[in-house]
Amino acid sequence: MRLSSFKSVVSKYDVVFFDAFGVLKTHNALIPGIEKTFAYLREQKKDFYVLTNDASRSPNALAESYHRLGLYDIVPDCIISSGMLARDYLELKVDGGTVAYLGTEKSAHYLETLGMKTLPIGELNLDFAHEVTALVMLDDEGFDWNRDLSKTVNLLRRRNIPVIVANTDRYYPMSPKYVSIAIGAVATMIEDIIGRHFIRFGKPDAQMFIFAYEHIKNYPDVSKKSILMVGDTLHTDILGGNKFGLDTALVLSGNTQAKEAEVKIHTTGIIPTYICESAVI
Amino acid sequence: MRLSSFKSVVSKYDVVFFDAFGVLKTHNALIPGIEKTFAYLREQKKDFYVLTNDASRSPNALAESYHRLGLYDIVPDCIISSGMLARDYLELKVDGGTVAYLGTEKSAHYLETLGMKTLPIGELNLDFAHEVTALVMLDDEGFDWNRDLSKTVNLLRRRNIPVIVANTDRYYPMSPKYVSIAIGAVATMIEDIIGRHFIRFGKPDAQMFIFAYEHIKNYPDVSKKSILMVGDTLHTDILGGNKFGLDTALVLSGNTQAKEAEVKIHTTGIIPTYICESAVI
Amino acid sequence: MRLSSFKSVVSKYDVVFFDAFGVLKTHNALIPGIEKTFAYLREQKKDFYVLTNDASRSPNALAESYHRLGLYDIVPDCIISSGMLARDYLELKVDGGTVAYLGTEKSAHYLETLGMKTLPIGELNLDFAHEVTALVMLDDEGFDWNRDLSKTVNLLRRRNIPVIVANTDRYYPMSPKYVSIAIGAVATMIEDIIGRHFIRFGKPDAQMFIFAYEHIKNYPDVSKKSILMVGDTLHTDILGGNKFGLDTALVLSGNTQAKEAEVKIHTTGIIPTYICESAVI
Amino acid sequence: MRLSSFKSVVSKYDVVFFDAFGVLKTHNALIPGIEKTFAYLREQKKDFYVLTNDASRSPNALAESYHRLGLYDIVPDCIISSGMLARDYLELKVDGGTVAYLGTEKSAHYLETLGMKTLPIGELNLDFAHEVTALVMLDDEGFDWNRDLSKTVNLLRRRNIPVIVANTDRYYPMSPKYVSIAIGAVATMIEDIIGRHFIRFGKPDAQMFIFAYEHIKNYPDVSKKSILMVGDTLHTDILGGNKFGLDTALVLSGNTQAKEAEVKIHTTGIIPTYICESAVI
Repeated sequence: MRLSSFKSVVSKYDVVFFDAFGVLKTHNALIPGIEKTFAYLREQKKDFYVLTNDASRSPNALAESYHRLGLYDIVPDCIISSGMLARDYLELKVDGGTVAYLGTEKSAHYLETLGMKTLPIGELNLDFAHEVTALVMLDDEGFDWNRDLSKTVNLLRRRNIPVIVANTDRYYPMSPKYVSIAIGAVATMIEDIIGRHFIRFGKPDAQMFIFAYEHIKNYPDVSKKSILMVGDTLHTDILGGNKFGLDTALVLSGNTQAKEAEVKIHTTGIIPTYICESAVI
Repeated sequence: MRLSSFKSVVSKYDVVFFDAFGVLKTHNALIPGIEKTFAYLREQKKDFYVLTNDASRSPNALAESYHRLGLYDIVPDCIISSGMLARDYLELKVDGGTVAYLGTEKSAHYLETLGMKTLPIGELNLDFAHEVTALVMLDDEGFDWNRDLSKTVNLLRRRNIPVIVANTDRYYPMSPKYVSIAIGAVATMIEDIIGRHFIRFGKPDAQMFIFAYEHIKNYPDVSKKSILMVGDTLHTDILGGNKFGLDTALVLSGNTQAKEAEVKIHTTGIIPTYICESAVI
Repeated sequence: MRLSSFKSVVSKYDVVFFDAFGVLKTHNALIPGIEKTFAYLREQKKDFYVLTNDASRSPNALAESYHRLGLYDIVPDCIISSGMLARDYLELKVDGGTVAYLGTEKSAHYLETLGMKTLPIGELNLDFAHEVTALVMLDDEGFDWNRDLSKTVNLLRRRNIPVIVANTDRYYPMSPKYVSIAIGAVATMIEDIIGRHFIRFGKPDAQMFIFAYEHIKNYPDVSKKSILMVGDTLHTDILGGNKFGLDTALVLSGNTQAKEAEVKIHTTGIIPTYICESAVI
Repeated sequence: MRLSSFKSVVSKYDVVFFDAFGVLKTHNALIPGIEKTFAYLREQKKDFYVLTNDASRSPNALAESYHRLGLYDIVPDCIISSGMLARDYLELKVDGGTVAYLGTEKSAHYLETLGMKTLPIGELNLDFAHEVTALVMLDDEGFDWNRDLSKTVNLLRRRNIPVIVANTDRYYPMSPKYVSIAIGAVATMIEDIIGRHFIRFGKPDAQMFIFAYEHIKNYPDVSKKSILMVGDTLHTDILGGNKFGLDTALVLSGNTQAKEAEVKIHTTGIIPTYICESAVI
């Protein structure tokens, strides 16, 4: 396995798409030294975006979380989250009624900016299931799994409504040694019980990359050849970037550890253009 | 769809295998009139067994639950549960160490009769993960899903140990209109996150039917041709019975409703020998 | 199930996306009367595109096939095929070497316009497997399944190269009563044997819809709200259209028959905005 | 990874179950030295059986194939094939009519000993589909894949009949460097297209192990503790053996190569009791 220097890689591209968790930060801290990368990007006038399967908070709240950690380069405008795609979908496709959701009150932000009537699944009375016109799965926190997951199944047995999953991840790192189950895995379990197709937003889906692509300042004058996708996960960041036609760099600071990278690339057939130790310059 | 009279069907067989939920009882009550069926079986000296994907209690406790509802024909000896298979597996294949489990204390009965050291997942300290030699999923109750399912994932990331799933069901009826998620669905979610194969016991797996077959009083002098499997679920009772070479009767008093039976049979390709309104004579 | 008149539906939109098979034509003939629909669209100056998971021929050859049947409105510029997406991917991501393919010589057109060195799988000598840099699955015809599918598996056991599937369909109608297995189903079988992820282009994937969206004459001034997707298949046309934020019309002239439409919508949870007998006005 | 000597392992057991391909033989030859193992077993009066997912020939023909290679210890009585299970199923569950099959004439042996009217899929006229009462998938040879696999799909769209798959393998070794797609993989493709459940016989399914267990000379006086399952494939031999409660030995002379054994065990969670270079003493 040949490792490349991240600086030599990034220098060849005009625009960089970053994954968030495992590339820029862990649950509670920045990846040490990552601020140097952003100083370099600023200096070189390279454009960048953060593509995140995180629908737990608004872009503003996500940007603030970087500021609190001391990284000020990441402003709301450069954040592309799966929650934003889910929001667009709801705006186009759901008229009126009550939108039930799994997630925290904070995550319901995406629904409320649309002026929708929202209801946390915990407060739903199944006798009024007929009033619910859509269900959105936003975050793994904010509800009682023992009680509310069965309730969700019963809602969907009563109502054939669109179900939107705003985060396709199956788990996420809480700390270097501990992961938590993400809402994407819960969604798959319920899909399997119910036998239906939910509508999912997030990497590796092309829609996420197009959304980011259309947000690039010089769009549509930027060629895909001059964009680099940087991520720590083969199945989301690298697969999605590759398929969209971008060059991709796998970093070993997150979900994919150095010792297993080669085996995983071989067994999955998902091949990054480059492998770098981290996104730190 | 041609419905047969259950009496005319059952009269042709010497031995009857019954599913429990949806055939003999719902969550809290007997299927009304089912005691007449057992009076008939007693009178005709037909042998019967209850094959249940229920590992939440011992055969004794399961039998008692029927007695409390007024059905005294079902004694511990005629109960074949997936928990008994899981127990046999553990006895043969797990030597020493601590067996962690998801389930109630009652369900841990299966482990304790083996003299095994058991630990509910909620009490597990991951720093001592190396002491755990197997994980058993017994029941959907008895633990905190928000906390303990992620903990289970982390245990399995640290330890490559056998995982035994003692109930393959994905959901079960709580009341005529409400279902609960069963441990089988939770197991699939965790398998999917971890990327490993768990060891599952329960219908439709052949092992369950063989276990019952070997318990028949006149075994091995009973031909499979003279055994009828009665169940309410195509994917477990009927599929498993068919594959084992038994004739099968689908009853419409549980998971499969009359209005959808034909469509389900057509779309799954799982074809019962007979369809009856219920197992009541 | 409420059926809508296709004319009343289509009159509300400025742009129409049509699926090809089962909507405009069957294997050898036009859907009777479909030319009236195109006369109406021409008269009303509505824009339209054909979105097809067909990589067996170039857009020119596809357009000609409509002309031969007497429908002259469909010109190459209004055809969006999964083969075009696969072509773009190869142009961006595969440099040099030999591209092996499954398909007819005609389907290899997509590769040859890129100046790539191509090799039908039947002519591949596995001793020279190291020269192959990508594999493209284009069409179900043009090779010997008995011999060449195992050969494909062996190629992929020797080489960890990108595999591109240019048609996600599992089967397609040959005649009103007979279907043929499509290359998408073959690809899934080989993925399953090899344990790897292939890169798939075609509906319901968002990339197909974006590609069409960007081809609209007045793009980007056309709102998604004014586009209608018309298709005969829930899992591709309707799912993909819904997810992209379009209104969708299911027609009953192809894969989804009138008698099963309601059951399929209910069991899959894929809900079209409208259901029409056909796309004929 | 600790390797054990096969002799020291086998000496601890009274009965040995062997997989065939990759353990005793490759496509055309014996594993060099394997006759010494059988000399030892004969001398030590240990009982043994060959459990094979091979339905291409009768037990007699399978035994002969060993004799031709110079191994005379393997007699028809010690062969347990998935074809025998499929045969039992058909005998119990299919009455009359025509049984269509995919496979060679030789493989149809299993059907003909039952006195069934059989029809190779290639000779089926779909206008007489109503006469077909079951479909059996026996072997990957003996039919034209281009023509007959689509024909199979069309048969199953017309007829909701039991489909029996007599070999669950996805591929098999033709030579040390070349594999062929097995009928099990083809069956999965067709299941996926049709959306139905087929009935599968073969390892890792418990039925195969029970069938072998019941054939043991001293059955039922042999404890599972004194049986060793020897195989080269984690997903069939080792998974099935483990689940049935047997000790298992993975050999590295077939599908699982030495360099990848540890990774595969880790990623699948299927853990053999022992790992040996081969079954040669």
